[in-house]
Amino acid sequence: MKIINNPAKQNWSSLCKRAVINETSLRETVQTILTDVRNNKDKALTKYAQLLDNVSLNSFKVSEEEIESAKNLVSEELQQAIQLAKSNIEAFHNSQKETLKKITTTNGVTCWRKNVAIEKVGLYIPGGSAPLFSTILMLGIPAKIAGCKEIILCTPPNKEGAINPAILYTASLVGITQIFKAGGAQAIGAMAYGTETIPNVYKILGPGNQFVTKAKELIQQQGVAIDMPAGPSEVLVIADETSNPVFVAADLLSQAEHGSDSQAILVTTSNDVAQNVITELKKQIEELPRKELAKKAIENSFAVVLNSSEECIQFSNEYAPEHLIIASEKASEYIEGIVNAGSVFLGNYSCESAGDYASGTNHTLPTNGYAKNYSGVSLDSFVKKITFQEVTKEGITTIGKSIELMAAAEGLQAHKNAITVRLKELNN
Amino acid sequence: MKIINNPAKQNWSSLCKRAVINETSLRETVQTILTDVRNNKDKALTKYAQLLDNVSLNSFKVSEEEIESAKNLVSEELQQAIQLAKSNIEAFHNSQKETLKKITTTNGVTCWRKNVAIEKVGLYIPGGSAPLFSTILMLGIPAKIAGCKEIILCTPPNKEGAINPAILYTASLVGITQIFKAGGAQAIGAMAYGTETIPNVYKILGPGNQFVTKAKELIQQQGVAIDMPAGPSEVLVIADETSNPVFVAADLLSQAEHGSDSQAILVTTSNDVAQNVITELKKQIEELPRKELAKKAIENSFAVVLNSSEECIQFSNEYAPEHLIIASEKASEYIEGIVNAGSVFLGNYSCESAGDYASGTNHTLPTNGYAKNYSGVSLDSFVKKITFQEVTKEGITTIGKSIELMAAAEGLQAHKNAITVRLKELNN
Repeated sequence: MKIINNPAKQNWSSLCKRAVINETSLRETVQTILTDVRNNKDKALTKYAQLLDNVSLNSFKVSEEEIESAKNLVSEELQQAIQLAKSNIEAFHNSQKETLKKITTTNGVTCWRKNVAIEKVGLYIPGGSAPLFSTILMLGIPAKIAGCKEIILCTPPNKEGAINPAILYTASLVGITQIFKAGGAQAIGAMAYGTETIPNVYKILGPGNQFVTKAKELIQQQGVAIDMPAGPSEVLVIADETSNPVFVAADLLSQAEHGSDSQAILVTTSNDVAQNVITELKKQIEELPRKELAKKAIENSFAVVLNSSEECIQFSNEYAPEHLIIASEKASEYIEGIVNAGSVFLGNYSCESAGDYASGTNHTLPTNGYAKNYSGVSLDSFVKKITFQEVTKEGITTIGKSIELMAAAEGLQAHKNAITVRLKELNN
Repeated sequence: MKIINNPAKQNWSSLCKRAVINETSLRETVQTILTDVRNNKDKALTKYAQLLDNVSLNSFKVSEEEIESAKNLVSEELQQAIQLAKSNIEAFHNSQKETLKKITTTNGVTCWRKNVAIEKVGLYIPGGSAPLFSTILMLGIPAKIAGCKEIILCTPPNKEGAINPAILYTASLVGITQIFKAGGAQAIGAMAYGTETIPNVYKILGPGNQFVTKAKELIQQQGVAIDMPAGPSEVLVIADETSNPVFVAADLLSQAEHGSDSQAILVTTSNDVAQNVITELKKQIEELPRKELAKKAIENSFAVVLNSSEECIQFSNEYAPEHLIIASEKASEYIEGIVNAGSVFLGNYSCESAGDYASGTNHTLPTNGYAKNYSGVSLDSFVKKITFQEVTKEGITTIGKSIELMAAAEGLQAHKNAITVRLKELNN
């Protein structure tokens, strides 16, 4: 990891730039798959399962027996760990419920918002090297709290056509029973358009590789909502003399092991702190089973030494990290200055892993600088906020004249007229 | 307006389908404009102003003098009407502020969300036949309440290079001072990429024609957030024997005058009610200055007669209208059943015009069936909800073991390790 000492402010934005993927051919490939799924439905899914996942499937739907027997394959202590995480995630997401507030804006004019669940949502859980059952907690729990009527889950099977038991156990624990063996862009297409087996949904959430991400982007243009745009995962750690270099290095590596395109940025006012962390990084990285990925990610990352803690937070705001760890005993002093970040971890014992799994916060967060303009997944992601209004005779009498004037000034006579006919009736 | 009597449920979805626009050539045209603005900035804006808006501009930025003198061109009574609307919209959007709630999910583990304003937002206000100053209230007021640091506004000038005074007055009233004379896809490009004159922003909101809508869709794929996908405006009115056919017809027409592609749907249990409304429609439509547009819109619309009020609400949920008017003295009985709608107007005196201008609710709403999966603009549209967490030594001791187990089961050794190094330190 290279150290950049006191970069000039005009160079910050180029330091904060993420890698851009050339995606023309990706777009074409994914569009072909989506069109095929739209037209040929289950038949297309069978084809791509064979072609891309190397598996022959008789049925896409995971059976009740498969779900039932998964429980026996998950150790008792892992089950308890997942239950603890569930309880904390539920507590935090339950707190995001909004109470209905009726506001009288003018006598006789009452307005309010009501949160109503999106009826049908689809969750995508990647397969591949690691079974990301924790993401089922992060998406399934708020979907359940919101009251979504239909929650379906797609995840790719292994070559034997099976789903990892921890995924089935966790899905069942949060109450998701419609689980389908489908992965990649084809799974996104299936949830967007519906097939004979897989129902269509109104919103698709969850992480995935570049094919999945591109498929989500394309179906968004066709009216299906998605959680947020995606990019490689990242962490930015602000460290000072009160931080522990062993912890900081471990946190940077927990990001780096995600993939070679992950970024793990260290920001500090002290060159010594940077040096100590780098020494620790070198030591810890050798112990990791995924050390090849982590080494590449660390090569793409950097440490920045700046003049003050104010500059550290300014740099972080410019970078807009998905995860921001303030590894300092004075972490609370930074809170006010934080403008752009997905999720913030305060102090030496608030490691990213805690939020990734079990503290209660959501781990589906804006990457790629999107923390400047997007929020992470929360209860809000599963509801529409419908506004209501009730205008009485008194209310329309009070505000009617103003509306007539404004509508007329906008050249919208029929808008004005809708008021006029009512005022006329009331004056009779 | 044709009446459809008791359509079979399997035909509802085709009745609820919106018209689809063939857009391949539109996409290419808009992409060309966006690329040009990205590369040639102000020069490209000057070119398109000349080419598309037929105006030669020396400066894109509206001067303080122009803003100052606009005030004198807006009548005192219109100013007061706009101020009344502002006050109501402020009251409702202020009520959407969230209080910070710190949640202890486990002893020593505290999580909360903090709403932080998106720093830079751009508002687009269309020009054309009507100066939509009311939309400035709907977008500018929540942006100000949220605390966005930079709020810019783009709107096309007329052929003399001037902006409608009501637009300048309203912008100034809500505190927007950076106003630029730019319209169409080129204005969206300018706000997305920035030019020598117009700063780039992180999120773009506001209505527009098909060029503007397509430009917003395209820049969204490049990381700039937008308010929501857009389509033609629409209203669905549920009417019964307690509704007033004169009011209902006026409300349908206030939608129809927006454009020939607007839809105004009547849903009722009574054929008589439908007939009476249609009779009134025919009478009122002849009086409208925009009657040609309204007639086409009404031709594209329909009345449905169904068996029960339950079926009426089911049909409305399937249609997912931008505006839902329950023109009934029993409107409150319908509330529980409403699942998909942008904004709901309850009772015979709650006309859409009220919410369009001055009741307090926002009029930037999901169209085209997007009320199934999107919310209208609110204070939420201008903030990111950043999560924070603080885990103490006690907290990590309590949840650490569970995290280690989950991380190991997901094959993420470095995630586990970030906990292990901390637990080890605490056990020393």
